[in-house]
Formats: sequence, C-alpha cells, structure tokens
Amino acid sequence: MEALGRHVLAEIYGCDFAVLNDLEKVREVLVQAALKAGAEVREVALHRFSPQGISGVVVISESHLAIHTWPELGYAALDVFTCGDRVNPWTACNYVVEKFKAKDITATEMKRGMFPAEKKAAG
Amino acid sequence: MEALGRHVLAEIYGCDFAVLNDLEKVREVLVQAALKAGAEVREVALHRFSPQGISGVVVISESHLAIHTWPELGYAALDVFTCGDRVNPWTACNYVVEKFKAKDITATEMKRGMFPAEKKAAG
Repeated sequence: MEALGRHVLAEIYGCDFAVLNDLEKVREVLVQAALKAGAEVREVALHRFSPQGISGVVVISESHLAIHTWPELGYAALDVFTCGDRVNPWTACNYVVEKFKAKDITATEMKRGMFPAEKKAAG
Repeated sequence: MEALGRHVLAEIYGCDFAVLNDLEKVREVLVQAALKAGAEVREVALHRFSPQGISGVVVISESHLAIHTWPELGYAALDVFTCGDRVNPWTACNYVVEKFKAKDITATEMKRGMFPAEKKAAG
C-alpha cells in the first residue's frame, strides 16, 4: 500500500506576537513556505479576526497549507498537506517555524489515502 | 490541559466520480457542511485540476475545512478543524460523507494546541 499524500500537523509554540497578528506577514510566510518546498501556489485566502488571530490557507497544486494563530498564546496550528514525491511538507513546516521565531514545536506526519501501488499509479 | 481545537482527518472512499469532479458541487457541499455544523463561513477558495480533481478550502470563524479529491480513485481527503465548543467537526464530516455517496470511511480526531485550562481561558 502506498499513500497519496503526506499531512504534517504542527503545534508551534512560543512564537512572536507581532508576527502571528500581522496578516500580510503571515501571508508572506505561508506563500514563501510553499515556494521553498517547491510547491505551485494556486489560491490564497486569509482572514484576520478581532481582536486578534489570523486564519489562512494556501491551496497548492500539491494540496494545501493552513494556519491558525493565537497571538495572545504565542501559538500557531499549522498543517501542510502534500501529494506526490516532489514536495516535502517538512521543508514548508520548518520554514514557518523559523519565520515565526518559535521556541517549541511538536509535529506529526499522517499518511493520507492508502491505495495498492498499482492502483495509485493508474489513478 | 485542554485543547484549543479539534481536527478531524477523514479518508473517504468509494465516492461518486461525478460529484468529486464537479467544482460547484464540491463548493456547495463544503459550504453546507460548514453551515450544518453551525460554523460561520469567512472565505472560500477552490481549484480544479486537469484532467480531474478538485482542491478546496473553506475558512470559517472556527478554523477551516479542506478537501482534495481524486475522482479516478473515488477518493477524497477531508480535514475539518474547529476551535471552541460550539461547532462539532464530525457534523461537517458526516455531511460530506453523505453527499459524496461514500461507501467507506476511516477518520481520526487530533487535539490541537494543548494549554492549561486557565491559560486557554485567559487567551
């Protein structure tokens, strides 16, 4: 059995408040994270909440990146879903961690869409 | 410790090809799934790939729904992330499963953003 996709879920703690609350900065970090991983950006949608916090998603040809920030807690929930063998979701994840100036992170990778190799190749 | 969010990852198999390859239908199902769960829709971004397959994201006040479809495999990867106690991600997940006419599903729920209860409440 082989997976169609890899889905990294990262809990990013101890981040810089100003970065987590800056919509344009979060947009830039997410898009650059996608590009650094070699992904192709297709759609970008972000939303800023009152009094604080940002939700954002970048749809890539290889699936998506999504972020939700709690600036007051210094916390961001990131998930990076990639399909195919060309793009490594950890490259994008590590870039976000660096740009958010995180002090601590826990992350896990889930395999998505398990199929027999021959069926996946034909799909 | 309490979680800020719940993140349901669902592997949806045996879906209807036509539904998985219809951008407007996928958009409608995702938005309705969010609304059925009581979520507030903020942004919607979808993309259709050639020759087939759709990626889509709905940003909600309570986080997001994301879908990636492989019509040729009858497979869709869904994730529903909700924060707060008001919206149940499984309500949205079950709605999508029903509308995609899925024959089989495996799903798991991840807790996102663990904080001591008092810090979460103050955040």
